[in-house]
Amino acid sequence: MSTEEKKAPSRKEALEAIMSRWAPAPGTETVPVPEALNRVAAQDMFAEYTLPVVRASAMDGIGVAAAAFQKGIPDTSHWRPGREYARADTGDDFEDRFDAVIPVESVTFLPDGGVTIAPDTAVTAGLNVRPAGSSVKKGEQILPAGRRLRPFDLAALTLGGKVDVAVVKKPVVAFIPTGSELVAPGTPPERGQNIDSNSVMVRAMLEEMGAEPRLFPIVPDDPAALRAALERAVPVSDIVLICGGSSKGGEDFNADIVSSMGEYILHGVASAPGRPMCAAMLAGKPLINVPGPPFAAYFVLDWCVSALVARFLGAEPPARKTVRARLTKDVGPTPGMEILRRLEVRRSADGFEATPVGGRGGCTFRTLTASGQTVTDGGGTGHAAGDVIEVEYLR
Amino acid sequence: MSTEEKKAPSRKEALEAIMSRWAPAPGTETVPVPEALNRVAAQDMFAEYTLPVVRASAMDGIGVAAAAFQKGIPDTSHWRPGREYARADTGDDFEDRFDAVIPVESVTFLPDGGVTIAPDTAVTAGLNVRPAGSSVKKGEQILPAGRRLRPFDLAALTLGGKVDVAVVKKPVVAFIPTGSELVAPGTPPERGQNIDSNSVMVRAMLEEMGAEPRLFPIVPDDPAALRAALERAVPVSDIVLICGGSSKGGEDFNADIVSSMGEYILHGVASAPGRPMCAAMLAGKPLINVPGPPFAAYFVLDWCVSALVARFLGAEPPARKTVRARLTKDVGPTPGMEILRRLEVRRSADGFEATPVGGRGGCTFRTLTASGQTVTDGGGTGHAAGDVIEVEYLR
Repeated sequence: MSTEEKKAPSRKEALEAIMSRWAPAPGTETVPVPEALNRVAAQDMFAEYTLPVVRASAMDGIGVAAAAFQKGIPDTSHWRPGREYARADTGDDFEDRFDAVIPVESVTFLPDGGVTIAPDTAVTAGLNVRPAGSSVKKGEQILPAGRRLRPFDLAALTLGGKVDVAVVKKPVVAFIPTGSELVAPGTPPERGQNIDSNSVMVRAMLEEMGAEPRLFPIVPDDPAALRAALERAVPVSDIVLICGGSSKGGEDFNADIVSSMGEYILHGVASAPGRPMCAAMLAGKPLINVPGPPFAAYFVLDWCVSALVARFLGAEPPARKTVRARLTKDVGPTPGMEILRRLEVRRSADGFEATPVGGRGGCTFRTLTASGQTVTDGGGTGHAAGDVIEVEYLR
Repeated sequence: MSTEEKKAPSRKEALEAIMSRWAPAPGTETVPVPEALNRVAAQDMFAEYTLPVVRASAMDGIGVAAAAFQKGIPDTSHWRPGREYARADTGDDFEDRFDAVIPVESVTFLPDGGVTIAPDTAVTAGLNVRPAGSSVKKGEQILPAGRRLRPFDLAALTLGGKVDVAVVKKPVVAFIPTGSELVAPGTPPERGQNIDSNSVMVRAMLEEMGAEPRLFPIVPDDPAALRAALERAVPVSDIVLICGGSSKGGEDFNADIVSSMGEYILHGVASAPGRPMCAAMLAGKPLINVPGPPFAAYFVLDWCVSALVARFLGAEPPARKTVRARLTKDVGPTPGMEILRRLEVRRSADGFEATPVGGRGGCTFRTLTASGQTVTDGGGTGHAAGDVIEVEYLR
């Protein structure tokens, strides 16, 4: 390992270096509540109405006056609906002169409208009655700013009388694939060519993060073309990603261009795949040069870009399932370098088992599509077959 | 608890009763790969091309002929690019007469085109060369039928030369809100009225499950109107949900209508909220009568409808994060009944802590929007404050 690699920042240090230079200024927009799934609330939300407006039955039953039950259960055989009682099903309001609900299970309805009430029924004022505001009170806080809205949050907003909600505008993330060897999907690759699969993957990842992807066409290995693409992308984006050309190859002049256009932050992290990633600030916006191999691009999006998008939105990234799984093979120590390992996670007799897939640099289908992942911590111990470790489950 | 309640099936038994009567026949459709996120592959997918087509450099470096290194490092000061060596950066192909790649870190480029190679460099044929097909081989399986496609699966399909993918058609799930007390969102509720918040929540939940929601307008408590809505919904849906009117209230005639139109399966489960849910088969399609209170509707969608959608799609439901959290309060035993409890989950010094929110029947904002949940198992023990239990994390 060269001296330069030893000095490379960890993922955490790299993020701190970027975040410390970035003051995102997200806008807000108002969207209909039914279209706000997974958007982030831009302000605290308060209820417009009180529900129940007056009161509601908490059970299916009959509304009665509790006063009639002060000396035990009265003779109810001559009762009539609308006179001594009223049907009051779950959620129903009923006339003010009734103040308790007897569950339907304790009531027998007689053919002439009278009722029989089970002898062990105790009736007091307020029994099975939900008072005004027991669901919602006008002015009550429904949810706080910064919340990523889940389906039940949309229900809460609706119950609170909201039809629109102010949300944080999605950050526009430009994605510029570079490389003269790349051909667009659908083009049969010839010798020396490769298919641009990152545009498709990155678009989907950005959408799941809550960002708005803006995909640019493939830029060949030509400094003027790359500079032109950057000049188009930066003004219309909140975050810019250049993909490919981040390492030390002869055609990898991205770092030079970026240096000339903005503030260079770092080139290289102690994390693989994706070790040669670069970060810079251009016009107050983070620019990440994402390495081109798909598995490297995946990892840099997963740890770095998702953190930037979450910071912009002011919300946690979406939660990801983790499982504790028993390793079926050793995962070697990785001194000085955090390394992403993909694993196939399967249910086993006593929980889950995880089989490491592929090596460090490989990007085969099986590595890319494996169901789980873990990141080794850069320490000198690693894990042995049989160890139970926490694994992120991706499906 | 009445005898009838004691006989109610568990959630597992209820699902088995529905599934055993249902033979879904999902169709397939072809969609562009970039639009296939979270769709379910309808068939095994195989690669169209081999990548690298011939070979590719695994490093940024220079391609050389290993034969020149048989007796150690030769004098390379007179070498010229394109004659004795070629630039070969990561992913690049290079001329056939070269068969090894020396990393750029081991090479010093001289002004006249010659190079100096670090003395400890060992060069053998194939060094740092990825052979044809090391990423992908034509005919290799990319992924199997039944896979819910994640962003990296879309990359794998693209690398394998696919631009379209056959996916399982989304099940159309009709949602019919019922209740004369309901008003549409945006209408100020008067005494005795309630806002239909379930349509908004259920639409979002169905979309996340991978279903296509078809929302119907509110149907008043009128048997003819409900029958008409069902007659419209059943032919155009794969699964039908009626919301509200599932319990034993005087206006809850849904069960009678459903019985007259199809095969009644069950009324009532040993699970709360949502205990009075009904299930039936109509024209070979499952019909679920979802209880109306939002928290009950949420739970029935979460355990029952999501399982039906997953069965239709032939894929696991999307994974949900779980955390082990320390309870800050007792959660009482729930003999004979599985009960959903929502909890606020927070990070604590030693992991997570979870505070139960609301009671069994309550549906306040705080219950509905709490960040976690657990289902008590219907046993007689419960959990005590201080116990560490597994909690589903919903944000």
